[in-house]
Amino acid sequence: MAAAPTFPAIDPPDILLYGPGPSIVHPRIYRAMMAPVVGHLDPAFLAIMNETSEMLRQVFGTQNRVTFPVSGTGSAGMEAALVNVIEPGDPVVIGVNGVFGERMCSIVERCGGTLHRVDAPWGRILPPDQIIDAMRQSGAKVVAVVHAETSTGVAQPLEEIGRAAAESGAIFVVDCVTSLSGMPIDVDRRQIDIAYSGTQKCLNAPPAMAPITFSDKALARVRGRKTPVQSWYLDVTMIEQYWGKERTYHHTAPITSVYALHEALRIVLDEGLEHRFERHRRNAQAMAAAMAAFGLELLVPEDERLWTLVTPRVPEGVDEAAIRAHLREWFHIEIAGGLGPLKGKIWRIGLMGEGSQARNLETLLGAFGHVLRQSGWEVDPGAGVSALNRYYREQYERPH
Amino acid sequence: MAAAPTFPAIDPPDILLYGPGPSIVHPRIYRAMMAPVVGHLDPAFLAIMNETSEMLRQVFGTQNRVTFPVSGTGSAGMEAALVNVIEPGDPVVIGVNGVFGERMCSIVERCGGTLHRVDAPWGRILPPDQIIDAMRQSGAKVVAVVHAETSTGVAQPLEEIGRAAAESGAIFVVDCVTSLSGMPIDVDRRQIDIAYSGTQKCLNAPPAMAPITFSDKALARVRGRKTPVQSWYLDVTMIEQYWGKERTYHHTAPITSVYALHEALRIVLDEGLEHRFERHRRNAQAMAAAMAAFGLELLVPEDERLWTLVTPRVPEGVDEAAIRAHLREWFHIEIAGGLGPLKGKIWRIGLMGEGSQARNLETLLGAFGHVLRQSGWEVDPGAGVSALNRYYREQYERPH
Repeated sequence: MAAAPTFPAIDPPDILLYGPGPSIVHPRIYRAMMAPVVGHLDPAFLAIMNETSEMLRQVFGTQNRVTFPVSGTGSAGMEAALVNVIEPGDPVVIGVNGVFGERMCSIVERCGGTLHRVDAPWGRILPPDQIIDAMRQSGAKVVAVVHAETSTGVAQPLEEIGRAAAESGAIFVVDCVTSLSGMPIDVDRRQIDIAYSGTQKCLNAPPAMAPITFSDKALARVRGRKTPVQSWYLDVTMIEQYWGKERTYHHTAPITSVYALHEALRIVLDEGLEHRFERHRRNAQAMAAAMAAFGLELLVPEDERLWTLVTPRVPEGVDEAAIRAHLREWFHIEIAGGLGPLKGKIWRIGLMGEGSQARNLETLLGAFGHVLRQSGWEVDPGAGVSALNRYYREQYERPH
Repeated sequence: MAAAPTFPAIDPPDILLYGPGPSIVHPRIYRAMMAPVVGHLDPAFLAIMNETSEMLRQVFGTQNRVTFPVSGTGSAGMEAALVNVIEPGDPVVIGVNGVFGERMCSIVERCGGTLHRVDAPWGRILPPDQIIDAMRQSGAKVVAVVHAETSTGVAQPLEEIGRAAAESGAIFVVDCVTSLSGMPIDVDRRQIDIAYSGTQKCLNAPPAMAPITFSDKALARVRGRKTPVQSWYLDVTMIEQYWGKERTYHHTAPITSVYALHEALRIVLDEGLEHRFERHRRNAQAMAAAMAAFGLELLVPEDERLWTLVTPRVPEGVDEAAIRAHLREWFHIEIAGGLGPLKGKIWRIGLMGEGSQARNLETLLGAFGHVLRQSGWEVDPGAGVSALNRYYREQYERPH
């Protein structure tokens, strides 16, 4: 006799995901995940791996041979990026202007690296000259910054740091978790040595994997180590032999997650990178106009903003968490609050891939206006939608 | 204008997965993965997490509070198990009788542990008294063995080691990747401190996560460390605050993979653990009879065999890889070959969850008999099917 099941089948609600990730999953990706699982050394899967790497190179803007998804979520990508190139005692410069810079510092310490942090206020960029000075003064072997700080909404300039790192020989590591496929990364042009991301942001797949790319300079650093990479699971010298020609078994790849990523990348390249970047840029501006119409200030100055995440300040007297709960309960819409020192002070609204399109923004702004008004904030609930559409009308033939 | 996609949509073949994993995915699991992705702090997801932990406790046979899936495949579970409890200089005993014991040794060295290996021939168990002697002589802080050696098909006895570890205070770590839900684990009864597994073996979900459980004794060891856990991503003291009551954000959980695991566990508990274990035991015996009918010897002596993987020796003069290629090409069936010193010498045939049922075994044995005969091995191609059915007929009312 079969026993009764302990719990009923899952039945999660259909939430419009406007937080900082996971983002709205594209229907084509759900469908791709239904493809039958095959073995991790099956010829059919090896072909899918090759195609996935090739599409990732296009989206990262790189010719790097070693470009593949790490078998873990975005933070596994961060750990993979750092543990492979840091040895005990190595001077490492980390730029910190949010949660993810802080996280990098914790990883550097766990690797035994000698940490040199450069801090900037949460909500502002790290001045490149400060990073470069710290790099030169410390003789840094590795310098790392977050391109898209998901905790604040800041877009970090990369060119000058890339140039300086190339001159000094430091390995330049960049966190692109919230920018990949929403903003140009240009790994090769910007002389980035290691860049990593996640599948659940602008790629619109479920959280599962962390795309990463290593330059030849980064790989030479790994091969020249005096100590083994402290993580077996994330050791790039072994993983690359599975993703590369050798096909040496390392760990069992998450087959279905690779299917999902493959489809996500096809969707991105179907649209075309330039069109996709421009769409994100425009919709971020339209959203800024809508926030202004609600009388909300943005945390980040205009020329330092991400195109993939908008972070309005919570007005005095408004209960940040109540607004979110109200949106979730009445409208089945998720947005997020601030973290750490910004807890209760900002909202974080992701504009990632499928999230960055006019239809969904109308829905979001209609509902957001309503809950703002209900909370007592004296605002026309339709002001956001009006501003959004005025922006589209004045600037473009049609919304994206 | 949208650019043309770089590659066509994936279209992997429907392969009957009889290798050592990934195993046949249950149709209910594919369906569960279509549930809409929600946020990783959404109340609906938090409830699913709690249910998943509760069902994992039942399948592991434990009351351990800290029981959850690691966000990576089985090897991430191994790394999580070891890096949390090993500090530099700690004496660690590892039993090695296959690939996965070797892998543990590599991780111990990367943690700076002082490695004491106990070796046994590949295809035989580790004599418990040898493990216990090594543990006592080295003053081991941690002792680890593989319950189900996926590279050989050996089932390791655990009781005596568990008792001795409990007496000595060593942390007892057990790899259950290929046994969880196919054979009893009995974490609490056997005094196992940390056990881990994978989703793509007897649970029949896609590879994605590594279920793990920590005893209070293991957690006390982690909390008493003098050095930080070297992996940020796998640091159980932080992950438990997300899976536990605090719900502190650590990393974004792989939502869809948790849905898949939740459904996998429901399927296991629907069947009932006792029934499921007995099914695996019987079908492993039936398969042994079938292999004997083909004139194939098994690598592992009868009383040391797994119920979830059978490992026949390749007869003299038969091309091991050609048999596999033939099965894959003509019948769309996957089995695996040996690794390391067993390369070319054995086949590895998984009998995991959905794989361990009469209907699929008939298919496998019919095809296997055919390709064996075609290879020149003088055998009745139907001998395997005959032996399987004779076993069912003589032993039981009906096959499982």
